[in-house]
Amino acid sequence: MVKQERAARTRQALVRAAAEVFAREGFAPASLAVISARAGVSNGALHFHFENKNALARAVELEAAERLARITSPRPALPGGALQALVDATHALMGALADDVVVRAGFDLSADLSRTGGPDLRGVWRGWVERMLHDAEREGHLAEGLSSRGAAPAVVAATVGFEVLGAADREWLSATKITGFWELMLPRLAPGRPVVPAGPHDTTPQ
Amino acid sequence: MVKQERAARTRQALVRAAAEVFAREGFAPASLAVISARAGVSNGALHFHFENKNALARAVELEAAERLARITSPRPALPGGALQALVDATHALMGALADDVVVRAGFDLSADLSRTGGPDLRGVWRGWVERMLHDAEREGHLAEGLSSRGAAPAVVAATVGFEVLGAADREWLSATKITGFWELMLPRLAPGRPVVPAGPHDTTPQ
Repeated sequence: MVKQERAARTRQALVRAAAEVFAREGFAPASLAVISARAGVSNGALHFHFENKNALARAVELEAAERLARITSPRPALPGGALQALVDATHALMGALADDVVVRAGFDLSADLSRTGGPDLRGVWRGWVERMLHDAEREGHLAEGLSSRGAAPAVVAATVGFEVLGAADREWLSATKITGFWELMLPRLAPGRPVVPAGPHDTTPQ
Repeated sequence: MVKQERAARTRQALVRAAAEVFAREGFAPASLAVISARAGVSNGALHFHFENKNALARAVELEAAERLARITSPRPALPGGALQALVDATHALMGALADDVVVRAGFDLSADLSRTGGPDLRGVWRGWVERMLHDAEREGHLAEGLSSRGAAPAVVAATVGFEVLGAADREWLSATKITGFWELMLPRLAPGRPVVPAGPHDTTPQ
């Protein structure tokens, strides 16, 4: 049992170290020797857990996909409905991209066109945004004359833009930027609705 | 003279072939042998013009920067003012990303965090978007209570999002998607202003 625990801990340290190196250098230039040194394990231990660099990158992507699934998991009905859930999840995703290197590296790896076959994290996010806007439309919360199909591309594109710009400059992931985005969009999407643009994680006064 | 012309033409063929290979495979995996074969020139000719793969990528980025500068160059005053210029340039940029492989590869290369020192194409675009919104504010065209500083991040993030999503799926660069984005945003940014969301390149009836 102790041995299994240690193995799981070593694996987790390798995934984290790999995420740090991939996020900083990109997949292609990253070196397995740098990753194992950073995790504090031998090259042999690395190869015991992961066949090659691609397997390590895949583990980072799958771990990021799990964390994204938690961010977009069903939550208790909110006064602002599906739109509030969408606003809150946008704040949570940008916070994770800023603070959790596994999520950051997972999104970068998943978007790397030279790699194939892994989870499509942006595609998962996109599908969830579209579902939330569809739910908001069914709830009767969207502005008159506005459909969820009309609104979704702008919200998907902007949130992907914040994600991408945040890789080079974390300021794009800040609660201030995301709140500003929703302050701009919400009066157009759902005028008069009680949706809080700051999300649940912001402690600045409303 | 004829010799110089031929050299210029060879150089141009190499830049184009490199852009095609970089856009399809990414910078790191791209092979110089594939690029010279695609350009129809010898490896020796490639190395006469470009010291290494990095020099070739830099030439693609600089050519893309010139084309971006043409897209954002000053134009005659439009009835819709700076906002119309912004809408029109967004359509022109997305059209170029869809149809001009040098612009597409230039943006991809410029955003590759493992490469440094080249032109920052997204940064140039961002600065220009901010300037246009600032001009629209000075023209008195923005909605009451809305500043250009409040509006710019959403427009920058969304247009960067369309650019990035368009690398994997050109549908994101279509006139339909960009027109839909502006149909959503313009009533919030400048209600009642005569800004045409379809831009100048769209021939569908208004």
